[in-house]
Amino acid sequence: MSLTGYPPQDLLHRKDFLKKVAVYKQKIINITKKKNTIFALNIPLLENNEITNALLLVQSGKIIYSVQKRILPNYGVFDEKRYFSSTKSKTKYFNYGNKKIEFLICEDMWTNDFIEKKNKKLDLIVVINASPFEIGKLELRHSHASKRAKYFKCSLVYVNLVGSQDDLIFDGGSFVMNKLGKIIIQEKFFEECETNFVVDSQIEKKQIKKISKYENLYRALMLGLKNYMFKNGFRFAHLGLSGGIDSALTLAILADTIESENIHSFYLPSKYSSNDSKKDAESLSKNVGIKTSEISIESLRNSILKQLNPIFKNYKDDVTEENIQSRVRGLILMALSNKLNSLLITTGNKSELAVGYSTLYGDMCGGYSLLKDVYKTDVFELCRWRNENTLPQFKVKRNNIIPEEILTKEPSAELKYDQKDSDLLPPYEILDKILSYLIDENRDIKFIIKKGFSKNDVIKIWKMIKNSEFKRYQSAIGPKVSKMSLSQDRRFPITNRFDL
Amino acid sequence: MSLTGYPPQDLLHRKDFLKKVAVYKQKIINITKKKNTIFALNIPLLENNEITNALLLVQSGKIIYSVQKRILPNYGVFDEKRYFSSTKSKTKYFNYGNKKIEFLICEDMWTNDFIEKKNKKLDLIVVINASPFEIGKLELRHSHASKRAKYFKCSLVYVNLVGSQDDLIFDGGSFVMNKLGKIIIQEKFFEECETNFVVDSQIEKKQIKKISKYENLYRALMLGLKNYMFKNGFRFAHLGLSGGIDSALTLAILADTIESENIHSFYLPSKYSSNDSKKDAESLSKNVGIKTSEISIESLRNSILKQLNPIFKNYKDDVTEENIQSRVRGLILMALSNKLNSLLITTGNKSELAVGYSTLYGDMCGGYSLLKDVYKTDVFELCRWRNENTLPQFKVKRNNIIPEEILTKEPSAELKYDQKDSDLLPPYEILDKILSYLIDENRDIKFIIKKGFSKNDVIKIWKMIKNSEFKRYQSAIGPKVSKMSLSQDRRFPITNRFDL
Repeated sequence: MSLTGYPPQDLLHRKDFLKKVAVYKQKIINITKKKNTIFALNIPLLENNEITNALLLVQSGKIIYSVQKRILPNYGVFDEKRYFSSTKSKTKYFNYGNKKIEFLICEDMWTNDFIEKKNKKLDLIVVINASPFEIGKLELRHSHASKRAKYFKCSLVYVNLVGSQDDLIFDGGSFVMNKLGKIIIQEKFFEECETNFVVDSQIEKKQIKKISKYENLYRALMLGLKNYMFKNGFRFAHLGLSGGIDSALTLAILADTIESENIHSFYLPSKYSSNDSKKDAESLSKNVGIKTSEISIESLRNSILKQLNPIFKNYKDDVTEENIQSRVRGLILMALSNKLNSLLITTGNKSELAVGYSTLYGDMCGGYSLLKDVYKTDVFELCRWRNENTLPQFKVKRNNIIPEEILTKEPSAELKYDQKDSDLLPPYEILDKILSYLIDENRDIKFIIKKGFSKNDVIKIWKMIKNSEFKRYQSAIGPKVSKMSLSQDRRFPITNRFDL
Repeated sequence: MSLTGYPPQDLLHRKDFLKKVAVYKQKIINITKKKNTIFALNIPLLENNEITNALLLVQSGKIIYSVQKRILPNYGVFDEKRYFSSTKSKTKYFNYGNKKIEFLICEDMWTNDFIEKKNKKLDLIVVINASPFEIGKLELRHSHASKRAKYFKCSLVYVNLVGSQDDLIFDGGSFVMNKLGKIIIQEKFFEECETNFVVDSQIEKKQIKKISKYENLYRALMLGLKNYMFKNGFRFAHLGLSGGIDSALTLAILADTIESENIHSFYLPSKYSSNDSKKDAESLSKNVGIKTSEISIESLRNSILKQLNPIFKNYKDDVTEENIQSRVRGLILMALSNKLNSLLITTGNKSELAVGYSTLYGDMCGGYSLLKDVYKTDVFELCRWRNENTLPQFKVKRNNIIPEEILTKEPSAELKYDQKDSDLLPPYEILDKILSYLIDENRDIKFIIKKGFSKNDVIKIWKMIKNSEFKRYQSAIGPKVSKMSLSQDRRFPITNRFDL
């Protein structure tokens, strides 16, 4: 879907959109006139009132071959049956000289269904993909590709999109496999690249360097952020620094990704903010070379409470007063977003968002929620990884940018005195494991308790997840990096009485 | 889906959910022991690792017949192919005595595909439905039902859910048709009811009273609101009154739906609020018997501007200052929501939300966006209709509750002096027609211009729609009442370069 972006979603229901695709299809075909190179183009193709996800091979100003996607994914983030018709037509190979080449589109490769089994003589399989990044997905891709290569006893070329759209990141990492299902070329991740090779030539098998989970994750977040900003016309980004670990990691990734002069950070203390928080925020900012401005929310907090006193005086203090602080910060950060034409980066993590430990219209404010799909324990690991690693792609050219104090102090929202996350939540090592079972694996309560977790904890957390659907419904968009992000991967009703 | 709610969405991916459904299925079967009445139950049925949308007929403690949904809708708000397998099995009728009865599940009725054409002898068709309310949908239901009844030359019973879940409203209005495709019984809308009748008896055709569009719409909004509150455990609701028409209609519907002592309304003026606004808000409140409290935002607005002055003094005034006012109001209304345990009702309409003429985290704050799918021109019509009509179901027992001044003054957000909606937008009569073409009908720009609208207006509005996808992404849930609501009906990417 190189002309349209992927997924084009309901743009596919607009005739003018499809017409424009057809216009550019023709322009591309015209460019190939008097050229011998074969150009592969994947577009939504409207024919007989049905749209297919189609691959065209173009040469010398003509379409010389076309094939349509057969297996339409309609799970996870995918809604392809909403848009596309699946072709039922029998496979006709593309014949290149005396070679039989099978072209597949993404999901088509995940089964053997694409070809009649009795007729399995192939010389090459080429798979084109817009395969969304997830931690661990690469191994799955390799495994499926390897099965197909071995089954059909031929080489396989896997080409993947690099870039992102909204919550989806496409990590590239195209590869070539030989007929034994072994990788002979593995291209770079998160960058565009170009390779020339001769099919079936006896290229010596390269040792594939295994990239660590956290390097992958860090670079995926960088790519998602960079693309979201660029494609949506934002030059500037800013965030609120709390002195805590989430905003620290967010700033680190920002500073590694975009020019430091385009980043603003703000420290917005109230009377509940500790001196340590200020110190930690400042040393972090210094480490990454970003200026931090301080804007106290204390007087505003007081004015609001005063204004509400005629009503509130009859009630005890509760979460309302905490939310007010968070919302004043949100209000100020959004005013800065409007005034400076800067994208506010939301700093909340997946653990918080899953259990609703966050304030709607408060710390949830922002245009891009960078850590939306990253559990708190992974936030820690990412910080540690970054402190020990500086890749050539990073704009900040040093290790140890996140102060040790931020990594070791106990997490707190600092919305009242002596508040700790652990007042309301189990320790994050426990919480995240339970969340991973409940969310990423959709496991039963019973199953999780059998794994050794406390029944009380599991049930409490399930209820917190359920009762915060309404918050997630209004949460900012953020990059999917796991197999079960809290966006289109996971679609739960707000209104439901399923109570275990 | 009487046990689960509809749609159950990804709850269907939880094994414990499906197990619980099976437990209650058995309980219901047990209740029928020693009883002759046939009980019809529709549930998600897990068999052989596939889930079907299944109808079971239960009698005397046994399942005596079962049938599965054949046509799975995967358009609009529906994602059924994400969850359900479609049965390919041939139709076996349910034989009741010597009668052949065909049971259909919702979408199954919309085509003739449910039965082999050559074998079309039927005595009765029964269709069970959870068919979401839309203006104009009833005529569609009647038309499809009539085709099936005539085609199979038999009576048809159409049973529809009453209630709501999240954004979907189910309006009831079950009916019976004779073999000529004429309605012989039309049940009530928006209320549960019970009817006894003898199939194929020569009941004289009743004259079906046509209900006006605005009565339907008003009652649908009432039902959606009432159910959302009740099912999500809210006794109290509140809103911000601006003196404008959107909040006026919202309060009218609230006051007609729930007890007046459970409603709070707040008037939150700044220096830009006119005296008329205050007067209009007060006379409206008096008409519906709801007390309005005034909380000025002026001092808070000033404090915030003062606090931001060190940064803002280098910039001109722009939309930032307007948004600050809207966000202070949002902050106060959310504090009241937290403190009073009250659901904040968002008052914005579909026209505003479509073009982004609203403030994210400001007037967009709230748990339920009552007019989310109602264009501004329909807001006016609904007010006029309500002023002339008082149904027995309404809690406010009088006409003319919305002051004429609110209906006749020019719409303004009152966020700066002499501001009018028409400063930035075409008149609503024009805007709504263009929006209806662009959104509800997904029409091309060219088509709309041919209809006589200005090219500038159409292109400007399309760009406004496109550039406000990010706001709608974070908007509160609200009831679908049109064929193209701004939620699951319409799924557009935020990031896209399609520019006409």
